[in-house]
Amino acid sequence: MALIVQKFGGSSVADRDRVMNVARIITDTYKQGNDVVVVLSAQGDTTDDLIEKAKEINPNPSKREMDMLLTTGEQISVALCAMAIEGMGYPVISLTGWQAGVATDSNYSAARIKRVRADRIRKELDKKKIVLVTGFQGLNKYDDITTLGRGGSDTSAVALAAVLHADLCQIYTDVDGVYTADPRKVKGAKKLDEITFDEMLELASLGAQVLHNRSVEMAKRYNVNMEVLSSFSGKPGTKVKEVVKTMEKTHVSGVAKDTNVARVALVGLTDKPGMAFKIFSLLAKEKVNVDIILQSIGRDESKDISFTVSQDDMARAEEVMRANQELIGFDSIEVSDKIAKISIVGAGMANNSGVACKMFEALFSAGININMISTSEIKVSVLVDERDAENAVQAIHDRFFGEFGEA
Amino acid sequence: MALIVQKFGGSSVADRDRVMNVARIITDTYKQGNDVVVVLSAQGDTTDDLIEKAKEINPNPSKREMDMLLTTGEQISVALCAMAIEGMGYPVISLTGWQAGVATDSNYSAARIKRVRADRIRKELDKKKIVLVTGFQGLNKYDDITTLGRGGSDTSAVALAAVLHADLCQIYTDVDGVYTADPRKVKGAKKLDEITFDEMLELASLGAQVLHNRSVEMAKRYNVNMEVLSSFSGKPGTKVKEVVKTMEKTHVSGVAKDTNVARVALVGLTDKPGMAFKIFSLLAKEKVNVDIILQSIGRDESKDISFTVSQDDMARAEEVMRANQELIGFDSIEVSDKIAKISIVGAGMANNSGVACKMFEALFSAGININMISTSEIKVSVLVDERDAENAVQAIHDRFFGEFGEA
Repeated sequence: MALIVQKFGGSSVADRDRVMNVARIITDTYKQGNDVVVVLSAQGDTTDDLIEKAKEINPNPSKREMDMLLTTGEQISVALCAMAIEGMGYPVISLTGWQAGVATDSNYSAARIKRVRADRIRKELDKKKIVLVTGFQGLNKYDDITTLGRGGSDTSAVALAAVLHADLCQIYTDVDGVYTADPRKVKGAKKLDEITFDEMLELASLGAQVLHNRSVEMAKRYNVNMEVLSSFSGKPGTKVKEVVKTMEKTHVSGVAKDTNVARVALVGLTDKPGMAFKIFSLLAKEKVNVDIILQSIGRDESKDISFTVSQDDMARAEEVMRANQELIGFDSIEVSDKIAKISIVGAGMANNSGVACKMFEALFSAGININMISTSEIKVSVLVDERDAENAVQAIHDRFFGEFGEA
Repeated sequence: MALIVQKFGGSSVADRDRVMNVARIITDTYKQGNDVVVVLSAQGDTTDDLIEKAKEINPNPSKREMDMLLTTGEQISVALCAMAIEGMGYPVISLTGWQAGVATDSNYSAARIKRVRADRIRKELDKKKIVLVTGFQGLNKYDDITTLGRGGSDTSAVALAAVLHADLCQIYTDVDGVYTADPRKVKGAKKLDEITFDEMLELASLGAQVLHNRSVEMAKRYNVNMEVLSSFSGKPGTKVKEVVKTMEKTHVSGVAKDTNVARVALVGLTDKPGMAFKIFSLLAKEKVNVDIILQSIGRDESKDISFTVSQDDMARAEEVMRANQELIGFDSIEVSDKIAKISIVGAGMANNSGVACKMFEALFSAGININMISTSEIKVSVLVDERDAENAVQAIHDRFFGEFGEA
């Protein structure tokens, strides 16, 4: 007997039949003798529909009222799912975020969980009830309803799993696990049985879009065993945990593509101390997140610095740089959003320089030009032209996971 | 400067344009220097749509989960309306029932308000905010969400008005006041400027359907001045209060028709003490509400007892009577739902027997047979055949409010 937290996303509860399906998964888990706590998202397009309703009335509503509005979506989900489980003859209770004791800060629309007082959940579990909790939401110190922002429901699930010391936190979604690359786009993409938190973090930030980083970060911090699996297939998914079996062997977990990236290049910088500090503190002040930074080794007095930002931040980054051209001291600025970042992720990669080499070789064989390179402990990223992105992913994936691959 | 509680029903906030309209009424009241607390119902068909969704999943869901589901409707209303008011540039905050401190008993789907801790509302009013509160809902002692059942939002409004010592509780609806008869059906129906609580209570229970009895009873108990008015017309409505200007004069306030009525007649009862007690305690045990009771003056040893119940309760009433035929001791039972109750309501009626007489005369002139008669301090009701109902109302209304009427 174990305590299992299950989370189902919006597509998993989109209509009556899917709610019934989810109720069956939940009651099957309960029947096996487990304590079950379930976190649900809003049904299908509910959240988008509510946002549209709001924008019709006020294009710029306060975040506080927006949270008041949107949190109804999850409340509808838990109530309906509880009714489905009641209909199957199992004891069940639904709870809102505040009833479940999820306390957050007051950053409406993007609140952080501060603590979870899980007394109520424990009491209901003691009564042998299946407990359904609204994802994505909590309560701040003013007794106002907040939402957790993107990836919020995953985060709710991991937070509850952490506080309740759950044996497993299952994230049910519409894909059946984490793949070596996007299975809709890359031939031969394989499902992984296991992956470490760090690898998952890199993959998520690279656009794998299976789990949100926030939830994985929290799972890593509190050592919550996660599993990503499909609510439709009934097959085992991908386990996400601190240490995986295959860890001692160098391996590549996956190939990811991120097209939401823009490059800013400052050309002809005078090389003097504090130059980089100046540039990046100006960007930080404007809340522009910088990803890859590359500084060229200049031949004479002048240097170039290139960095990448998300496409949403490109205009702002350019503006800040131009406004401070004299202060920073550069000749010209070039920006481009016609690029993509392709990355391979794998634990233990740092100890095996051959991995990066294989990646570059695959790109060379496919005739794809590399624009920038960045490496970390468990990741190698390259920037390529946007139009080369898909070919690049396939070529790299073939090299590592294809019939003659070596991962 | 006054404190005004305003309540808007579902049809008043059914879509974007109506929400904007309501926001204008609210901000107009605020601009005049008043403190404004607003109670809103769920938009248009929201509640019915949610009920349908629930029934698809479980035809017989628990009331607790049903309340969890339905309360989202009002939460959507207050959030959207707050956004509309923000857009107009006024300070506003929306609150759920529990945030507004509405404490109820645990009778899910038909909870009674036990108390209102209005600290939060007062705090927001002190900050000069317009306060929007979800109608129809509260919180029980287990921190679970409850709904107040039929007429719930009116009751929420009156409860808040009572606790806050509001100067006026305005109930906005889709009719512009209380009429002497249903204006859609009776020619010459006139809007009343004022009416007493007691008259309103009788009219509401007789199917006038403008205000729910519960809210009027509460308003009477706490002496809350009410006004019923239209959110569309912009005209003054009908004031409902303890004493009205015209009170010293005998008057008839209105004529009402109730077709949701059924008659049960027990024929050939042996006349012995405790007979009535037996009958009505059996009905009470089955929660059958009895309205009019009539006992014939028997010629010999046997008597008849007739009573009316709502049509929903007819089958149950018959069943209970038949099951206890021996215990009660009657020869036969007759039930009929092809009847209607027509009533005239007016303060001071008891002191003027001529009023009832005029009513009977009007019916006689129209060739309508009277089936049963019941009178109270401020009401005279008659049962007639269902097919005579509309004619009966028109005839009585003409007699009292027509060109030559005398009310």
